[in-house]
Amino acid sequence: MAGNSFGTLFRLTTFGESHGRALGGVIDGCPAGIVLDLNAIQNELNRRKPGQSAIVTQRKEPDTVEIYSGLFEGKTTGTPIGFAIHNTNQKSKDYSHIKDSYRPSHADYVYDKKYGFRDYRGGGRSSARETASRVVAGAIAKQFLKGIEINAFVSQVGELKVQRPYQELDFKEIEKNPVRCADPEMAKQMEDYIKSIKKEGDTIGGVITCVAKNVPIGLGEPVFDKLHAELGKAMLSINAVKGFEYGSGFDGVLMKGSAHNDQFNKDGTTKTNLSGGVQGGISNGMDIYFNVAFKPVATVLQGYETINKKGEKVKTQGKGRHDPCVVPRAVPIVEAMTALILADYYLLARVNKV
Amino acid sequence: MAGNSFGTLFRLTTFGESHGRALGGVIDGCPAGIVLDLNAIQNELNRRKPGQSAIVTQRKEPDTVEIYSGLFEGKTTGTPIGFAIHNTNQKSKDYSHIKDSYRPSHADYVYDKKYGFRDYRGGGRSSARETASRVVAGAIAKQFLKGIEINAFVSQVGELKVQRPYQELDFKEIEKNPVRCADPEMAKQMEDYIKSIKKEGDTIGGVITCVAKNVPIGLGEPVFDKLHAELGKAMLSINAVKGFEYGSGFDGVLMKGSAHNDQFNKDGTTKTNLSGGVQGGISNGMDIYFNVAFKPVATVLQGYETINKKGEKVKTQGKGRHDPCVVPRAVPIVEAMTALILADYYLLARVNKV
Amino acid sequence: MAGNSFGTLFRLTTFGESHGRALGGVIDGCPAGIVLDLNAIQNELNRRKPGQSAIVTQRKEPDTVEIYSGLFEGKTTGTPIGFAIHNTNQKSKDYSHIKDSYRPSHADYVYDKKYGFRDYRGGGRSSARETASRVVAGAIAKQFLKGIEINAFVSQVGELKVQRPYQELDFKEIEKNPVRCADPEMAKQMEDYIKSIKKEGDTIGGVITCVAKNVPIGLGEPVFDKLHAELGKAMLSINAVKGFEYGSGFDGVLMKGSAHNDQFNKDGTTKTNLSGGVQGGISNGMDIYFNVAFKPVATVLQGYETINKKGEKVKTQGKGRHDPCVVPRAVPIVEAMTALILADYYLLARVNKV
Amino acid sequence: MAGNSFGTLFRLTTFGESHGRALGGVIDGCPAGIVLDLNAIQNELNRRKPGQSAIVTQRKEPDTVEIYSGLFEGKTTGTPIGFAIHNTNQKSKDYSHIKDSYRPSHADYVYDKKYGFRDYRGGGRSSARETASRVVAGAIAKQFLKGIEINAFVSQVGELKVQRPYQELDFKEIEKNPVRCADPEMAKQMEDYIKSIKKEGDTIGGVITCVAKNVPIGLGEPVFDKLHAELGKAMLSINAVKGFEYGSGFDGVLMKGSAHNDQFNKDGTTKTNLSGGVQGGISNGMDIYFNVAFKPVATVLQGYETINKKGEKVKTQGKGRHDPCVVPRAVPIVEAMTALILADYYLLARVNKV
Repeated sequence: MAGNSFGTLFRLTTFGESHGRALGGVIDGCPAGIVLDLNAIQNELNRRKPGQSAIVTQRKEPDTVEIYSGLFEGKTTGTPIGFAIHNTNQKSKDYSHIKDSYRPSHADYVYDKKYGFRDYRGGGRSSARETASRVVAGAIAKQFLKGIEINAFVSQVGELKVQRPYQELDFKEIEKNPVRCADPEMAKQMEDYIKSIKKEGDTIGGVITCVAKNVPIGLGEPVFDKLHAELGKAMLSINAVKGFEYGSGFDGVLMKGSAHNDQFNKDGTTKTNLSGGVQGGISNGMDIYFNVAFKPVATVLQGYETINKKGEKVKTQGKGRHDPCVVPRAVPIVEAMTALILADYYLLARVNKV
Repeated sequence: MAGNSFGTLFRLTTFGESHGRALGGVIDGCPAGIVLDLNAIQNELNRRKPGQSAIVTQRKEPDTVEIYSGLFEGKTTGTPIGFAIHNTNQKSKDYSHIKDSYRPSHADYVYDKKYGFRDYRGGGRSSARETASRVVAGAIAKQFLKGIEINAFVSQVGELKVQRPYQELDFKEIEKNPVRCADPEMAKQMEDYIKSIKKEGDTIGGVITCVAKNVPIGLGEPVFDKLHAELGKAMLSINAVKGFEYGSGFDGVLMKGSAHNDQFNKDGTTKTNLSGGVQGGISNGMDIYFNVAFKPVATVLQGYETINKKGEKVKTQGKGRHDPCVVPRAVPIVEAMTALILADYYLLARVNKV
Repeated sequence: MAGNSFGTLFRLTTFGESHGRALGGVIDGCPAGIVLDLNAIQNELNRRKPGQSAIVTQRKEPDTVEIYSGLFEGKTTGTPIGFAIHNTNQKSKDYSHIKDSYRPSHADYVYDKKYGFRDYRGGGRSSARETASRVVAGAIAKQFLKGIEINAFVSQVGELKVQRPYQELDFKEIEKNPVRCADPEMAKQMEDYIKSIKKEGDTIGGVITCVAKNVPIGLGEPVFDKLHAELGKAMLSINAVKGFEYGSGFDGVLMKGSAHNDQFNKDGTTKTNLSGGVQGGISNGMDIYFNVAFKPVATVLQGYETINKKGEKVKTQGKGRHDPCVVPRAVPIVEAMTALILADYYLLARVNKV
Repeated sequence: MAGNSFGTLFRLTTFGESHGRALGGVIDGCPAGIVLDLNAIQNELNRRKPGQSAIVTQRKEPDTVEIYSGLFEGKTTGTPIGFAIHNTNQKSKDYSHIKDSYRPSHADYVYDKKYGFRDYRGGGRSSARETASRVVAGAIAKQFLKGIEINAFVSQVGELKVQRPYQELDFKEIEKNPVRCADPEMAKQMEDYIKSIKKEGDTIGGVITCVAKNVPIGLGEPVFDKLHAELGKAMLSINAVKGFEYGSGFDGVLMKGSAHNDQFNKDGTTKTNLSGGVQGGISNGMDIYFNVAFKPVATVLQGYETINKKGEKVKTQGKGRHDPCVVPRAVPIVEAMTALILADYYLLARVNKV
């Protein structure tokens, strides 16, 4: 399996390259009877699309989704939902400078080695443009998961880090600033910082925190397919992600068991939630929360030396319109992947008992 | 799929509970013609087994693996390898105190909610005893992956952290100390610290670092099944793991792209390796390295208050023989899961091209 | 998994309803480096399309395939091939007469029961229109399988049955007659018979025989995924298929082992081939051949009584333009499914040995 | 995936060779809370085991199943059920005569070609001994499917064929005769005939008919995973099967649509059932019935000429204790595979709707 599908029962398969005719996907296993709000799907795509603010890439792509199947009289039919987003901005000429050379820390070199050649236009399939399809599917999953609230936000850009715990933040702030940070004051600092990075022709990393509330107890398959393991895989499958932690995460390493254990209340909730809403791989009804680390975007608008296909040194220069920091546009992607997993495990949980 | 299988072409399915008759598994897809060293498999199991040193649980389990199928005249036949480890230490009576109550930060509560009841003996299926089957399969995968070197070691226990980069460490030190730390001086400190934690009846978290050398270029399926995404899932599926990072990891967030990019040498290797041996989800021939964060073991040998099935408060006391720190015994598990993934992707890479 | 994918390594996922906006699919796992002949793909589609002769449905659908991804400079890239066929003939009004009633021996009733409602336009997803996507994918698989020859032909219509063994037939005759029968004299009789059936407003069943030559030895996974088992499933998944037999098939029941066994020649070929090219689920290099039984099309252009959603008796009348006999148009579908399976098993066979 | 697993949600993986230490399997996805009758499982195994009557192989194998996991206090726990049947009759010496030569119409030749060598003892993994594991799993599936009745019986041996439709037969007769034919008079003729075949040292083919009653409406996934397609695959995966047909089957080819269509009663049942209980791949609540064709067993106790590994002609002689006709012992296997599929689709049907 060539790795372009995700999920078991609620399953997304995507296709498409950065500069191909269209990208899109098929959702197989979406239950029948969901009244789909098509505007809500397009809205999620708009949160991800280029050109939405001064701190993201200035490319112009309308990113309009067309749904080809699986809907009838406004409702999902239980049959596969095929969809496509046509590329309108296929300027191959922009990429002639990288046709024969390998950009550092991109997938150019490994694609050539693995497949024998590559679609060099904008990274082809390795481009984060693929994630548009995930956002479409995630938006449909969200509509299936009525009642579950999924909110992601930028919690760190470079050294700038939100210090308050997520419980003290107002998620309504997220969409009010271009960084998508839930802390308005920090958002302003981050925005300024990203602008200064952009001016340098450089890029910077960041962290997205995601919180899922009202997740029913019992989602997750023990052993290999633990809920948090699948969440981790999903996040690590997003371009530029280098790390994942949930609940206490890497800081939990420093703690003693007596302090780390989440004591029960009488109703089965816990007084603390260092477990991050998951115990033994299964949701326990508390908030699920996790952090996703993104490296700085590899395309910098500076001169650099690299090698070409023949193994010769070549000098080149980053060009085009790129994101100085990927996290503001990655927020809807993190949410989409979270929704896809929860939808899948929600269905899987229907078959636990006689 | 109830989540007890791992891998696509080199695929492990496990079964068994902590206190059942036997645990074991089936490896399906192991290629024919591998000359199997059965002692090497048992040796890996011995690295994981209880009672091996003063800083791990003192339970006595011989953990002898029996191979039922898939071998003929010393070689794998291409047919499934079935194996079992019989439990010889099934003392159910030890667990009467938790039969009706839920241990904090264990899976007791969620199993009851998900399945309607649970095998309360030693955590049943949620026990890390299941990982013995993974170690068996991983030992077989290692023998398939001749030439690839996989070394994991403890790099942090609580606040005690190895400061030197892995390149400066001698992996031959790992098995010379009970902590399995590659830095002998730090190993001694960690050992003393774990002993003091044990004396308190408490537990402590830790980090395991894993390094895979000589991985061929081209392993990994782009998009959802990126090599590092599957590694992350594998690690997060190990009991008590709270986080995963590879290459620059969470520290990469702080860097600028101009500094983070790994510049090429003429031969396609890179001068730095912040990418961690994986670009765009595909191995690039450099060392693959990653960190895995383990929380402190939830079973503390102290009195605590919790709830029972009826939602009543009950006082109880941790009993039995448990690990004060899980990382020394988790080292072979991390290696096993790494080997399983590399074996799987090694086979998947055979079908990339015409 | 909702059943819209086929194959493990060479994997097709389809979407689309009879009267939706478009149907299509994604091929995941097609190896990189295949020089694709797009005309050959369209030609296969044309063999399946309506209106091609007087004995098939007279609907007008151009069935033009658009390939969205996975191709670069004329070659497959190893990334998913997304494609779509837009529906240009979406006349929903034709189907008002079946909106609330259930056509006998169609899927109308079970779809309503399973999903709560259905897309009643032309059968929606249950329509054989879905097989257009299979033909596209099969045409690509054929191009991957250079050297393997796959030929299907109509061997029976009603009582009219080709009596000569396939070895005596000239497959070049198949495309020379509208029935796609490899025996020209029988083809003429079949054609006349189908015309008379059509005149009655009735339909008739038939058999397609398929022969795959030059299949390498060693394709097929023992036990559950035997090569002929997967072929059987593939054929039975085609609309209107009621039976499958390979090699000696149902006639083999009558034979004694001493007569049925295929004796070896010195080069490993066999003197007879009652095994049908597969032994123990694995190809042995001899011709693979099998028969596929199709029932008469359920839509008859006659008056009939049936029930509606409320369980009331209603009188209705078959309308529209339908096939009096499905087998002539099903020939390319049988070939396509055969090609998909052989492509998949061809890749799987790459991982048998060290 | 090497083909040793079956099912999606209720999933069986088997291991083991004819003359290895043990064979067995893992059932993953069996829902929690089934009260398991272990005697009923052993009884099913006994129906399949050798030596049970004068017309089957006289090998002595007790075939006692041991369940290792997944059960607690008599009930399934939702965790994987691991089981093994130890081989007690591992006489390798019986097979020295085939070590270097290929038996006609067995898998010997293709295994050697595919894997480079083979376990020649009794056919190794290609032996029908593997089906013992299927019978265990099927017996568990049957207990999950309370209310659904699955009955298979021998309907043909060579030319001897039960003429009455299954509706007129009394399934209680099946276990009263060693042939497992539901027609007592025909059973006697078949028994005599098999004895005469045995005396010749020859073998004969047969047909098993299977009927599943009380299957709920709505089981089956449209398109590739149609219920009858998966049934067909399951049956074709049983050793020696050459054909599968359901409902009207190959005879349906001869009929006109106006006669073949199953007219509805007001309650949604149909007056006839040529559809065989499945429409569009989905169960419609009517009886599901199908025929499975078995070739004559390849091992004949007569002298024959064949080739060895070097491609030389060798004379040899069939030896040992073999079945003259496989169908009497295959009846519980057909039922087991039917139960496994229905269990799987029963679970899949839980996720159709919101």
